[in-house]
Amino acid sequence: MELYSERGFEQTTVADIAERAGLTERTFFRHFADKREVLFLGAGPLQELLVNALVDAPASLAPIDAVATALETAGPMFLEHREFSRQRQSIIMANAELRERELIKLASLASAIADTLRRRGVGEPAANLTAEAGIAVFKIAFERWVDDENEQDFAQLIGESLAELKAVAAGH
Amino acid sequence: MELYSERGFEQTTVADIAERAGLTERTFFRHFADKREVLFLGAGPLQELLVNALVDAPASLAPIDAVATALETAGPMFLEHREFSRQRQSIIMANAELRERELIKLASLASAIADTLRRRGVGEPAANLTAEAGIAVFKIAFERWVDDENEQDFAQLIGESLAELKAVAAGH
Repeated sequence: MELYSERGFEQTTVADIAERAGLTERTFFRHFADKREVLFLGAGPLQELLVNALVDAPASLAPIDAVATALETAGPMFLEHREFSRQRQSIIMANAELRERELIKLASLASAIADTLRRRGVGEPAANLTAEAGIAVFKIAFERWVDDENEQDFAQLIGESLAELKAVAAGH
Repeated sequence: MELYSERGFEQTTVADIAERAGLTERTFFRHFADKREVLFLGAGPLQELLVNALVDAPASLAPIDAVATALETAGPMFLEHREFSRQRQSIIMANAELRERELIKLASLASAIADTLRRRGVGEPAANLTAEAGIAVFKIAFERWVDDENEQDFAQLIGESLAELKAVAAGH
């Protein structure tokens, strides 16, 4: 991450990263499929956190509200890595390959959420649509959260983004 | 496409495709960035069609309904290439790299729709959320449309998928 910020993603080689981390290139590739993956270390834990929170959400909640409740639980994890999240976001936005990898991670998150909704008894296409709508809410809230000017709480931004989605879908 | 269906995407080389099409490899690469792009020839015309339809949608429509009206106009274009669309979908779904490329094309479509909504006077984050919700509606409708069992009209599937999104967002 430091190297990507200093030199840019394209100019940083796996050899540079391994050297900075005190690893051999071979060890690097034992842990990461490629140099893009270094920036997506958090995707697995985030997905696990959100899926578990969705499993635990009260059965009385409508599916979209259960998803939003789960998304709110990511707040403390992001807050703990606020500066990292900001740097990471600007590196990703500046590189098409990284944006591509980010889209895959979000698609995987959407499909894990849809699976969990189906296990909560939500039918099709409601499960897929709720998951996709949830990811849209998450993206908007996260972009506003990493914005330097914005000191709002992540859970609050999820709430606002969900309210906006509901207004938009209702045709306001 | 024929070759991808016969041999599988991974087993088909650019040399094979160029030979079948009576082109040199050099000419192939003048037209396509890589062998994945062959399957996304329709993405540019589709985006242009949808953006133009959204520009022309009645100003009285709520943004989400204007987007749905625009999506419905893709029906005849898909119908004209029904068999192609089905084969293409099964090739894409079987290959991670192609799914990745598909996600990029959908993200580009979402951002073109958001831009067009902003030009219609829709604010932020409503423009982005409406565009993302519209893409979710489109994906669900398209998946149902390419399904062999399903002989429904594409416009009708968009209508059903939109109604489902509205129900989901309202917390039903």
